Amino acid sequence: MFEAAEVGHKLSKGRYKRIEPRLRAELLDAQYDLYKNSGFSVILLISGVRGAGKGETVNLLNEWMDPRHIYTHAFDDPSDEERERPPMWRFWRALPPKGRIGILFGSWYTAPIIDRVFKRTNAKDLMRSVEEVNRFERMLADDGALILKFWFHLSQKRQKKRLKALESDPNTRWRVTGRDWDFFKVYDRFYRISEDTLRQTSTADAPWIVVEGTDPKYRAATVGKTLLDALRKRLQAPAGRAGTKIRAAPIVRPVDKRHILCKMDLELKLDKKRYEAQLERLQRRLALAARHPRFRDHNVVCLFEGMDAAGKGGAIRRITAALDARLYHTIPIAAPTDEERAQPYLWRFWRRLPRKGRFTLYDRSWYGRVLVERIEGFCTEADWMRAYAEINDFEEQLARDGAVIAKFWLQISKEEQYRRFKERAKTRFKRFKITPEDWRNREKWDAYQVAAADMIERTSTAHAPWVLVESNDKYHARVKILSALVHGIESALEAR
Amino acid sequence: MFEAAEVGHKLSKGRYKRIEPRLRAELLDAQYDLYKNSGFSVILLISGVRGAGKGETVNLLNEWMDPRHIYTHAFDDPSDEERERPPMWRFWRALPPKGRIGILFGSWYTAPIIDRVFKRTNAKDLMRSVEEVNRFERMLADDGALILKFWFHLSQKRQKKRLKALESDPNTRWRVTGRDWDFFKVYDRFYRISEDTLRQTSTADAPWIVVEGTDPKYRAATVGKTLLDALRKRLQAPAGRAGTKIRAAPIVRPVDKRHILCKMDLELKLDKKRYEAQLERLQRRLALAARHPRFRDHNVVCLFEGMDAAGKGGAIRRITAALDARLYHTIPIAAPTDEERAQPYLWRFWRRLPRKGRFTLYDRSWYGRVLVERIEGFCTEADWMRAYAEINDFEEQLARDGAVIAKFWLQISKEEQYRRFKERAKTRFKRFKITPEDWRNREKWDAYQVAAADMIERTSTAHAPWVLVESNDKYHARVKILSALVHGIESALEAR
Repeated sequence: MFEAAEVGHKLSKGRYKRIEPRLRAELLDAQYDLYKNSGFSVILLISGVRGAGKGETVNLLNEWMDPRHIYTHAFDDPSDEERERPPMWRFWRALPPKGRIGILFGSWYTAPIIDRVFKRTNAKDLMRSVEEVNRFERMLADDGALILKFWFHLSQKRQKKRLKALESDPNTRWRVTGRDWDFFKVYDRFYRISEDTLRQTSTADAPWIVVEGTDPKYRAATVGKTLLDALRKRLQAPAGRAGTKIRAAPIVRPVDKRHILCKMDLELKLDKKRYEAQLERLQRRLALAARHPRFRDHNVVCLFEGMDAAGKGGAIRRITAALDARLYHTIPIAAPTDEERAQPYLWRFWRRLPRKGRFTLYDRSWYGRVLVERIEGFCTEADWMRAYAEINDFEEQLARDGAVIAKFWLQISKEEQYRRFKERAKTRFKRFKITPEDWRNREKWDAYQVAAADMIERTSTAHAPWVLVESNDKYHARVKILSALVHGIESALEAR
Repeated sequence: MFEAAEVGHKLSKGRYKRIEPRLRAELLDAQYDLYKNSGFSVILLISGVRGAGKGETVNLLNEWMDPRHIYTHAFDDPSDEERERPPMWRFWRALPPKGRIGILFGSWYTAPIIDRVFKRTNAKDLMRSVEEVNRFERMLADDGALILKFWFHLSQKRQKKRLKALESDPNTRWRVTGRDWDFFKVYDRFYRISEDTLRQTSTADAPWIVVEGTDPKYRAATVGKTLLDALRKRLQAPAGRAGTKIRAAPIVRPVDKRHILCKMDLELKLDKKRYEAQLERLQRRLALAARHPRFRDHNVVCLFEGMDAAGKGGAIRRITAALDARLYHTIPIAAPTDEERAQPYLWRFWRRLPRKGRFTLYDRSWYGRVLVERIEGFCTEADWMRAYAEINDFEEQLARDGAVIAKFWLQISKEEQYRRFKERAKTRFKRFKITPEDWRNREKWDAYQVAAADMIERTSTAHAPWVLVESNDKYHARVKILSALVHGIESALEAR
C-alpha cells in the first residue's frame, strides 16, 4: 500500500494556486450543506509516519473550512479518568455529533500498532484489535457516519531528511523529540505492521487513503479533494443508510409460539422468614465484596429488564440497601436528549460509564433498542438487528476492562401484572408508577415476550449472561437476583 | 449553631412508624410533581461530622423516593482531569438538571473547612472561600435551584461512642479508618471552624439545617420533613424567581448617547507590508510561548465578541495558524442544547473548559447573555443584570487557576459592516456567512452598541480586561489582537 506513496508526488505552485481557491470554496459549501443536512457525522482519522505533515494538514483543513464546526481531537496519554474505563471510552467521548466534522489526531489504531511495534503485544492481540476496530467502524458507518482514514506516509530516506531539516531550523527544532528518532529506528517494523493493519482495516465503509507526505501542496490538495468528493457523493445520495425509513418492525414468531420464557416456572416461591434470612446474608456478602481491596480493579454493571411492574425497582433497592451511597449510581433509561440523538445509539451509555470500584444499576438499559424501540418502530429493523452484535461488543469491552456484568430479565405472568397494576393504583406512594403508557404496553405483551426471548438468545454471552428471574413471587426474585450478583462479584474477586 | 443538636433528640419507634409511611408517600408525590414541573433543580448537601449517619440518610432518601430521579454524587480526591481545572469544576459537573434532585456527599465546603482545620490555609483564605461559596449559591438560587444544606452533628462524646461501636462490630469495622480518628483528635477545632463557616453561609437562599445525628429515626424524619416542606412550598409558589416572565430588556441610554465605543479611532490602519512582517513575528512568539515548559501550568481562554462581520473568524484563524492543531479548540457559541437549558447559564461553558496547556478560542461566548440575550429578550432583565457578576466570578476562577484570559471586542463602523456584508455576498466561499438574521441584527445596531459598552464597563477586570480592537482595518485589528494575546501569555509565563 505504501509504495504508491513513495513515487515523489508533487504539485507545482502554479497548479496549486489554480486549484486551491475553488477547492476551498467547494469544501466550505459542502461543509455548510452537511451542517444543514445534519443527517450524518464525518470522521477523519489522521495517522501515519512522523514528520509527514499531519499537523499542517489539520491546520489547513481548519483554515479552509469553518473551524467552528470542526472538532479536532488529539489523543495523548490517557487521563486517569480514561484509564479507569475501557480503552475505547476516550474515542466515544470525542465522536463528532451529526452535522459536524471530527478530526481525530491519533485514533483507535495508535495503541494497537505502537504496542505491536514495540513488542508489548503479540500478533494475536493485534489481530483481535483489528477485528474490534472493524466492528466499531462498521457500527459508525451503519449509524451513517462518513469515515475517511488518512495515512500520511514518508519513505525512510525522506523521513530522515525531514527530521534533520526540522532539527536544523531553530524555529522547528522543538518539534523533533527523542521519540521521533526511536520511531525512526524501527521504521521497517513500523512500516510492515502498519501496512498489514491498514490492509486489514480498509473497508468500503471506512477506507484508508494513503497520502505521500513529501510535498505540502500535493498533500493538502489530495486530502481536500478526497474529502470534498466523499462529502458530495454522500450529500447527493438519496437518504442513505442513516435515513432508512422508520417502520414497525416485523415480529418473528416461532411456529409453535414457544420460547425460552414459556419454560420458566413462575410458581417458584420463598416464604417470608427464609427470604429475610437469606436477604440479610446476601446483603452482608455484597457489602463485604464491595469493600474487598481487589474490588477497586472492577466495577459492577447491573441491569434490569422486564415487563412493567415486574419488580425492577424493588430489586434495585434491595441491592443499594447493602451499599454505601457513595458507591452506586442508579440510572433510569428515558428518552434520549438531543445531544444523544446526534450520536450513535450506544453513545449515551458509553458517556455514563462508571469509574472503577463502583456499581451502576440500570433500570432498563441499552436493551431498549431490541425491546421497546423494536416493538414501537422507533428504529428500523436494520438498526435493531445490528444492535445485538453491537451490544455484545460493548459488553465484551466492559468485561475485559474488569466489569462484572449482571443482566436480569424479570418475568411475571400477565395476570400477575394486572394484579400489581391494580394494587399500585390503590397504594398512594406507588401511584405515579402507573401511566396510560403502561396499559398500552400491556396490550403488546406477546410482542414484548417474543422480543425478549430473541434478545436473551442473542445476547447471552459467557462474559455477560442473562439471568432469568421468575418474579411472580418478589421474595424469590430478589433472593435470586442478589445471589447471582454476589456470586458474580465474588468469582471476579477470586479470579485474579 | 451546634448546641441545639446536642440535646439528645429522639423519636420513638412507635411514632416513627406512624410518621414514616405518610412522609414517604408525600415525598414521592412531591418528587413526582418536581419531575413534571421541571422548573427547578433541588440540591441537597450532605455534610457534617463523621459517624453521624450521613450515608444512612442518603440511602434512606434513595429508598423513600424514586432513586431514578436522584443524582447522588460523592466527592473523593479529585481526578487528574479535575485537578487541571478550577476547583469548582467538579461540582459544576455534578449539578442536577432541572426537575431532579441532586444529593452531594461532600461539597464545595469540604476542602475549605478541612484545609483550614489542618492549617493548610489561613483565616483569610477561608474567608475568601466563604464569599465565593455564597456567590455561587446565590447564582444557583437565582437560577431557581432549591438548595438545602444538611449538617449532621454529633457531640465529641457521642462521636467517640459511635466510632467505638462501629469498630467493635465485625460487620461495620471497615467503616472506621485512621482518618476518622485523625478528625476526632481535632474535634474542637473542626467544631469551631465549621460552625463559623456555617454561620457565614446560612442564607435565606441556601440555609443550613443542623441535624442531630444520634438517633437514626429522628435524623431520618427531620431530613425527610424538611425536604418535603421546602419542596411543597416551592412547588406551590407562583412561578417564582426561576419563572420570571421573559420580556424585552429596557436599554439604558446615556443622556448624551456617548459611550466608550464612540471614542475608538476606527481610522487606525496598517499597511500590508508592515502587517505581514508583524504578523509573522507575533505568530512566531505565540508559537514559542505555547511550547514553553511553564505553559503546561496555564491555559489560554480567548474570546471574541463584536458585531457580525467584524472579523472574529479571521482573527481566530491568524492565531490558530501559529499553533499545533493538538493544542487548540475553537468553540462557536450557538443555541444551547436541551441538556444545557436544564442547567444554570454558565454550565455550558464550564463543561467545555480545557485542560492545562491548551488554547480555547470562543467565537462569541458567555457574554451572549448580556448582548444578544439582553437585546432579544431571551432572558429576563434580572437574569442578564446578575450575569455581569456571575461572569466576573467565573473568569476570576479561571484566572486563579492559571488561565490567561484574553477578551476582544472588535469594533467596526456601521458603514464598514454594510460594505463587508455586500462583499461577502459576492465571494463564493464566504457566502454562507450572511444570513437574514445578520441583517436583522444590523437593524438593532445601536442597542448592541449600548449593551456592549455596558458589558465592557462592568466586566473589564484586572485578571480579565477587555481589549477594544479598532477593526475597520483588518490588518490593524489582527496585529493588535495577536500582540495583546502574546503579551498576556508572555507575562503569565514570566510571572511565576
